[in-house]
Amino acid sequence: MTMDKAIAYAQENRERFLRDLNELLEIPSVSTLSQYAGEIQRAAEWLHLRLTKLGFGARLLPTGGAPIVYGEYRHAGKDAPILLIYGHYDVQPAEPLEEWVTPPFSPAVRGQDLFARGASDMKGPLMTYLAALESVLAVQQLPINVKFLIEGEEEIGSPHLADALANNRQLLDCSVVLNGDTMILRPDLPTIIYGLRGLAYYELRVETAEHDLHSGIFGGAVPNAGQVLSELIAGMHDSQGRVTLPGFYDDVLPLSEEERAELARIPYEEKEFLTQSSGYGVIGEEGYTVTERLGARPTLEVNGLLCGFTEEGSKTVLPARAMAKLSMRLVPNQRPENVQGQLEAYMRERAPSWLRWEVIDLAGCPAGVVRRDTTEMQAAVRALEGTFGVRPVFAREGGSVPVVGLIQEILGRESIMMGFSLPDDNLHAPNEKFHLPNFEHGIEAYIRFLYELAK
Amino acid sequence: MTMDKAIAYAQENRERFLRDLNELLEIPSVSTLSQYAGEIQRAAEWLHLRLTKLGFGARLLPTGGAPIVYGEYRHAGKDAPILLIYGHYDVQPAEPLEEWVTPPFSPAVRGQDLFARGASDMKGPLMTYLAALESVLAVQQLPINVKFLIEGEEEIGSPHLADALANNRQLLDCSVVLNGDTMILRPDLPTIIYGLRGLAYYELRVETAEHDLHSGIFGGAVPNAGQVLSELIAGMHDSQGRVTLPGFYDDVLPLSEEERAELARIPYEEKEFLTQSSGYGVIGEEGYTVTERLGARPTLEVNGLLCGFTEEGSKTVLPARAMAKLSMRLVPNQRPENVQGQLEAYMRERAPSWLRWEVIDLAGCPAGVVRRDTTEMQAAVRALEGTFGVRPVFAREGGSVPVVGLIQEILGRESIMMGFSLPDDNLHAPNEKFHLPNFEHGIEAYIRFLYELAK
Repeated sequence: MTMDKAIAYAQENRERFLRDLNELLEIPSVSTLSQYAGEIQRAAEWLHLRLTKLGFGARLLPTGGAPIVYGEYRHAGKDAPILLIYGHYDVQPAEPLEEWVTPPFSPAVRGQDLFARGASDMKGPLMTYLAALESVLAVQQLPINVKFLIEGEEEIGSPHLADALANNRQLLDCSVVLNGDTMILRPDLPTIIYGLRGLAYYELRVETAEHDLHSGIFGGAVPNAGQVLSELIAGMHDSQGRVTLPGFYDDVLPLSEEERAELARIPYEEKEFLTQSSGYGVIGEEGYTVTERLGARPTLEVNGLLCGFTEEGSKTVLPARAMAKLSMRLVPNQRPENVQGQLEAYMRERAPSWLRWEVIDLAGCPAGVVRRDTTEMQAAVRALEGTFGVRPVFAREGGSVPVVGLIQEILGRESIMMGFSLPDDNLHAPNEKFHLPNFEHGIEAYIRFLYELAK
Repeated sequence: MTMDKAIAYAQENRERFLRDLNELLEIPSVSTLSQYAGEIQRAAEWLHLRLTKLGFGARLLPTGGAPIVYGEYRHAGKDAPILLIYGHYDVQPAEPLEEWVTPPFSPAVRGQDLFARGASDMKGPLMTYLAALESVLAVQQLPINVKFLIEGEEEIGSPHLADALANNRQLLDCSVVLNGDTMILRPDLPTIIYGLRGLAYYELRVETAEHDLHSGIFGGAVPNAGQVLSELIAGMHDSQGRVTLPGFYDDVLPLSEEERAELARIPYEEKEFLTQSSGYGVIGEEGYTVTERLGARPTLEVNGLLCGFTEEGSKTVLPARAMAKLSMRLVPNQRPENVQGQLEAYMRERAPSWLRWEVIDLAGCPAGVVRRDTTEMQAAVRALEGTFGVRPVFAREGGSVPVVGLIQEILGRESIMMGFSLPDDNLHAPNEKFHLPNFEHGIEAYIRFLYELAK
C-alpha cells in the first residue's frame, strides 16, 4: 500500500525533519515587537522556499503587515477535493529570558521534548504538515489538491487576515480546512477540537495626577494610580469568580445538558491538572467544572501591570499613571466589539469621578464552534484512530484561533482542528516545548488524513 | 553691620552661586541605581573641594556605601556653639525621562525656577548653605563653629548613617543641627518643620504558578498573579480610607486638640492644593483634614507595580509572578520594624492558602517630632522673621528625613528644620525645580541664623 510506504518514509526521515524544524525555530519571528520585522520576513521566505521545493506553486501575499505564505498543489485534478492547510509562522515574545533553561531560539532536545519558542505554537505543527506532504510525495502524487495559507500575525490577533481572506476568496477556495494550531489532551488521547474561545484584548490606562509626586509630601491626600488601578481590577470579579462587567454574560449561549455530559467524559484530576499547569491552586467560576471553565466559559484576565518605580531598590514616588493589559476569553455568542463597551460601562460605574482613564483596543476575535457531522470530520476521526488505535475525543479549547471563525464567515468553510500540542507544552511561556512522539504521530495522522479525504 | 555686609555680598554674587549650583546639578548622583556609583563619588569630591576652598578642614568618611562628606570650621573658639549642618548629595532617579521638558541633568532656568533633578532635593539647599557661609566669611571669621555632615544615601533610606553616627560621636559633637532638607509652605510663608513622618518600604512578591501560562489554555481555572496582587492591594484600605494591616494604628500617638488647632492655622484651599499637587482629586482617611492626612497620619502607598507583559502590543499570557513596591509613611510612635510583621500578618490572613509570597524589606526609619521651646529654635524664628518680615509657621511634614530621628537617638541633639523647597517643586518627580527667590531668601535666612546663634 502506498500509504504504508509514505508512513515508512516518514519514519526513516525523522532525524532530517527534526533538523529542518530546528532551522525554522532559530528564526526569532516575534510578531508583536517591531524590531523583529526582518525575522518575520525571513521566516516567510524560509517557508516559501520549502513549499517551492515540494513542488507547490508558492508566493508571498502582501498584507498591511506580515506577508501570508500561499502555496498550491493542483495536480490531483478538478474533481478531487481541495484541502486548505492553515498555519502561522510568527511566535510569542520569549521574555522573561532568564527563566529559559536553554536559549529560546537555540532549539534543544531534553528527554522526549524539543525546547524552543514556537516549538509547539506552531512551527512544530508547520513542520508536521510539511513532513507529511513530503512523505506522500516521495511515493506518489498527492491524492487530493492542497493549498497553504500561513500567516505571520496570529500572535497579535491576525489584524490583516480578514481583508486577506476577502480579497483572495477565489484563490483560497477549498473543500475543507485543516488547522493544526490546537491541542491534543494527552499523548495517548487523540483529540479533535470543535469549539474555541474568542478574545478581546485591551490596555486600560488610568491617570490620577499630571505627574508623579513625592509620597511623603502628598501621600495620604492625593490619589495613587497604582492603588486605584488595583481596586478597579479587584472589582472586576465577584466573590463567586464571575466577571462583573455590565452585560458581560448577556450574550453567552448556555451549555446544554448534552454538551455538559459530553465534556464530562474528558478525564480530569486536580493533581494532574496542577502538575500540567504548574499552578499552585485551582480557581474559577462557581457552578462549573474545570473543563467547562477552561473551554466553555468566558474569562477576564490581567496579562500585564505597570506602574511607578519597578527597578531595584526603593523610590518613594506616588505614581500618577498606571496601566493594565486586560483580556477576555469569549464563548459563543459573545462579540468582541461589545466587550469594549462593557469595560467602559464598568469604568463609568466604578471609577472615581475625577479619574482620567482610557481603554485601548489591541486585538479581538469571536468564539467559534464547528460542525461534528461532516464527511471530512469522519475522515479525521479515522485518521486519528488509525494512528493511535483509539477513537478521538471531541473537546473545546480555551484558546482563540481567530482564523477558524473568519474562514467560516468569509470563505464559508469548516475547519478540522487536529493538532498535537500538549496542555503542558508551555505555550506563550518560558521553556515552550514540542513532544517528539507527537511530532511522529502527527505526521502519520496527517498522511492518513490525506488518503482518507481522497476516499 | 557685618551681617548686612554679608547679605549684600550674597546679593552681589547671586549669579555665580547659581553657576556653582548648576555645576553640582550636572552630576547625576543617583544613589539607588548601581551604575551611578562613579557619579556619587564625583559629587562627594566636588563638595569636599568646595569645603576645603572655604577654609574648612574637610574629608570623606568611608561607610559601607557612599562616602560621607565631613567638614569642620573651629576658629570661633571652644566656648562658641557648634552648628552641625546636615545635607545629602544623592538624588532620586530621573525616570520617566520623556516627561522632562529639559533633560534632568542639564539645569535650565524657566521664569523664576531652576529645573533639574536634585534642584530642590537637595543640591539647591546644599548650595544655599555654602553661599551663606562664603558670604559671611567674605566679611569676617564665622561667629560660631560649624561642621558639615553630607551623606550620599538619603534617597535610599540612609542604610549606613546610623553606624557612621555611632562611630563618629566625638567628631560630630555639636550644640544643634541645621537641616535644610524640608519645606517652606509658600514662598512668602516662612516655615519651620517640627514633625516628620517615618518610612517603611517593602517589595511584595507573589507567585501563583511555576511559570507564566497561556491565558487561553489555562485562563479561568489557574490563578493569575496580577489579579491576586490587585485584590490584595485593594484590600489594604477600607472604605473609610484606613489602612487594614492588623495592628497598623496600635502605636499611633493620637493628635491632641491643641496640636490639631495649631495645624488648622496652616492655610488650606482645595483648589490651591489640586493646583500645587497636579492631582485630579482629594482622597484620604475620613475624620482628618488634608493637613493632618499629609503630615500627622500614617499612610500606605503603592510605589510601583510590575507583572506579566508590559511592552507594546498584546501577549495573552497568564502571569505567574507579580511585584508591588509598597511603602508606609509612619507617625509617632510607630516603628518601622513592626510594620513588616503587620504586612505579613495581613498576607497570612488575606492571601489564598496556595499563594507563595515574600516581603522584602528595602528601607525604614521612624517618625520624629522635635522640641519647639529651645533657644536655637528661637534663633531660627528670628532669622526667618528678619528675612521675610513675618513670623514663621510651625508645621509637620509628610516626608521622612531619617537623620533627624537618628541624630536624636545617637548624638542626643535636636534639629532645626528650616528648608526652602516648595510643595510644588516636583520632588522625586519629573521637572523637579528650585524656586530662585527661595534660593536668595534661604541664603539670607542662613546668614541671619549664624549671627542669631552667636548671640
